[in-house]
Amino acid sequence: MSWRADILSLFPDMFPGPLGFSLAGRALERGIWSCEAHDLRMHGLGRHRAVDDTPFGGGAGMVMRADVLDSALNALPALDGRPIVYPTPRGRRMTHEDAERLSVGPGVVVLCGRFEGVDERVLEKHGIDQFCMGDFVLSGGEIPALALLDACVRLLPGVMGSDISGQDESFTDGLLEYPQYTKPAVWEGRETPEVLLSGHHGAIANWRHEQSIAVTKARRPDLWDAYLARQQIH
Amino acid sequence: MSWRADILSLFPDMFPGPLGFSLAGRALERGIWSCEAHDLRMHGLGRHRAVDDTPFGGGAGMVMRADVLDSALNALPALDGRPIVYPTPRGRRMTHEDAERLSVGPGVVVLCGRFEGVDERVLEKHGIDQFCMGDFVLSGGEIPALALLDACVRLLPGVMGSDISGQDESFTDGLLEYPQYTKPAVWEGRETPEVLLSGHHGAIANWRHEQSIAVTKARRPDLWDAYLARQQIH
Repeated sequence: MSWRADILSLFPDMFPGPLGFSLAGRALERGIWSCEAHDLRMHGLGRHRAVDDTPFGGGAGMVMRADVLDSALNALPALDGRPIVYPTPRGRRMTHEDAERLSVGPGVVVLCGRFEGVDERVLEKHGIDQFCMGDFVLSGGEIPALALLDACVRLLPGVMGSDISGQDESFTDGLLEYPQYTKPAVWEGRETPEVLLSGHHGAIANWRHEQSIAVTKARRPDLWDAYLARQQIH
Repeated sequence: MSWRADILSLFPDMFPGPLGFSLAGRALERGIWSCEAHDLRMHGLGRHRAVDDTPFGGGAGMVMRADVLDSALNALPALDGRPIVYPTPRGRRMTHEDAERLSVGPGVVVLCGRFEGVDERVLEKHGIDQFCMGDFVLSGGEIPALALLDACVRLLPGVMGSDISGQDESFTDGLLEYPQYTKPAVWEGRETPEVLLSGHHGAIANWRHEQSIAVTKARRPDLWDAYLARQQIH
């Protein structure tokens, strides 16, 4: 059984989109995963196939209807234990651990919202997991869905070849990665740090660890605090 | 002058991709913004147009060469004050304020990395702004680039019509948004909160504010702490 993604969207033609290229695209061709996008409009109501209505209590914008989304969810192929996720700025933050957890399971269903969001009751009924990519607002859930799927698919067995490595990555040990250098050793007068050319593996590992700490402190004090807290526990 | 995005990527055909649809796609057709993706491979070295090499100091994967990226950056049309950004898990976190700041400027250049990242020296030379979407690893910078552009483009004047509103959004006041409900008032026995049907604007505003606080506390204690800290200052 390959890893399976079903996506519910008003713009099914956005998929697989960028995931049809490169690592994810080759894995799609080889059947390591599959991706099917379903058009929410097919479940819309009336002659205009309406999917949304004005929010109760007033306010700008439109809200996607619970009955329409429920009908689309019920028409999906068997979930077989796959969780339904809904990208929204209202969700908890998605992390690398979420991608790892999803990638070892049977797959995922992604509900892509638009407008002012979806009726809360459909989220409750289906126990839908709400997460956000980051602290910014997008025009819909489709690009976060692409990000989620990319983060998962690259972790599936056989997807990452010699192109890229899952080891020594940012976040996997709670620190950001050290800076990288490649040929030429001197470029436009800018030198590669001497230690990296030294061949002393211990010294290189120490330098990289110090660099990881420095960049994490500078750019992500939140990760640094979490790292320190974990060190104190162990 | 329309808002201009240039993208450097090994997969230029990923663009505009999902941004060719919906709000961003209509804005692209109307000339509110423009999007040009440039193939990094065109600046590769030798018969195989190599763009990367092994990292100095050892380790898995490949690093994109400074000279190749520099050549691609120098071949771009005039930047005219547009910043160059590089999505990477090593960056600081992108926020809604970044999208707001970029959207009021002339546009952006996005450098999309692949493999184990890019040679640090090209980032230094061009003063490239490094940011991350969230705490997860993707197979390249292309999907974060799409997210960044979407977050900016939807804020450009004339892009958001009656479809969607920039007001009352998550993050704009530091709290997550309240839950939304639309017709039918009772769906499968699930009722809309009575206050939303009451017509009492003050009570509705109070309820929504309380809901915003509750969901922010539950899902994003980091945002809640920041919100409290700001309240104490004012």
